[in-house]
Amino acid sequence: MSKPDTPKAMPPEGPMLPVPGLDYGLLDGLLGYALRRAQNALYLDFYRATAEWDISPPRFAALVLIARNPGLRQGLLGQAMGLHRSGALRLTDWLTAQGYAERRDAPDDARAWGLYLTPVGKRLLVKLEAAVATHDRALIQALGDQGPTLKAGLERLARIATAPPTD
Amino acid sequence: MSKPDTPKAMPPEGPMLPVPGLDYGLLDGLLGYALRRAQNALYLDFYRATAEWDISPPRFAALVLIARNPGLRQGLLGQAMGLHRSGALRLTDWLTAQGYAERRDAPDDARAWGLYLTPVGKRLLVKLEAAVATHDRALIQALGDQGPTLKAGLERLARIATAPPTD
Repeated sequence: MSKPDTPKAMPPEGPMLPVPGLDYGLLDGLLGYALRRAQNALYLDFYRATAEWDISPPRFAALVLIARNPGLRQGLLGQAMGLHRSGALRLTDWLTAQGYAERRDAPDDARAWGLYLTPVGKRLLVKLEAAVATHDRALIQALGDQGPTLKAGLERLARIATAPPTD
Repeated sequence: MSKPDTPKAMPPEGPMLPVPGLDYGLLDGLLGYALRRAQNALYLDFYRATAEWDISPPRFAALVLIARNPGLRQGLLGQAMGLHRSGALRLTDWLTAQGYAERRDAPDDARAWGLYLTPVGKRLLVKLEAAVATHDRALIQALGDQGPTLKAGLERLARIATAPPTD
């Protein structure tokens, strides 16, 4: 039984623990390496928090986006998630194969269709949102005053790194 | 010509651009989602900065770790990189297939072997380190005062999210 899979649906293999005695050279000074370590730890924590469901951060994000934007076009979903046509197709194939979402004709254009959550998908999302919000809030609380600063810094970093290279 | 591949050797498919008019629901408030967007943008920028080589952030980190720790055991490399045995094996297979690294007997134990960069690997790493350092420094500089704060926050977040769940 092979199911269609989404990009990066697998959790990281394990934590990127600092190994005592190992010389990390310039890695220790890189913002990018600090970000990768944080992402690795957060992903593992996300999978712990959602262990009872076969879900990944991208799958969760897709469920939220479809719930909040009923009739969402697959192209827009891919754009929001940084996926090409084939990646967005694999993701929506998975969501529909699981019975969480369905494709329905767009009311204004019979040739196009949009994505909607099914009742099963809606019920799942209620539980997932609670689990993910709890996991995320616990991290923000543990960071204390640093939490909002870190989030704002990450949002700025995403904008900066996305800007086209100037040279 | 299929080459052994490393986990996550592919760049993200595209940028996770905020889509105007789309309702992101609770995603906008999540630290984890801000981190994923920043990671997506940084990865794309990393691939732009290293476009002339077939390299990924994990491959780059492995080259640095082997260079700084000659004779590194594959198990330790996997531990540092959050890879299981098979993932670490795929990564070192790729590095040796490219001629960047080689396995040699450990001086103190003929049954064990360690990893060493080849002259080709060392020359590649000089260029890669320069390119990656430039890419990373540009981001830190664009962040201004926020740069060091963000890096420290990410390091703390990695520690917090790695701590075993308490409940």
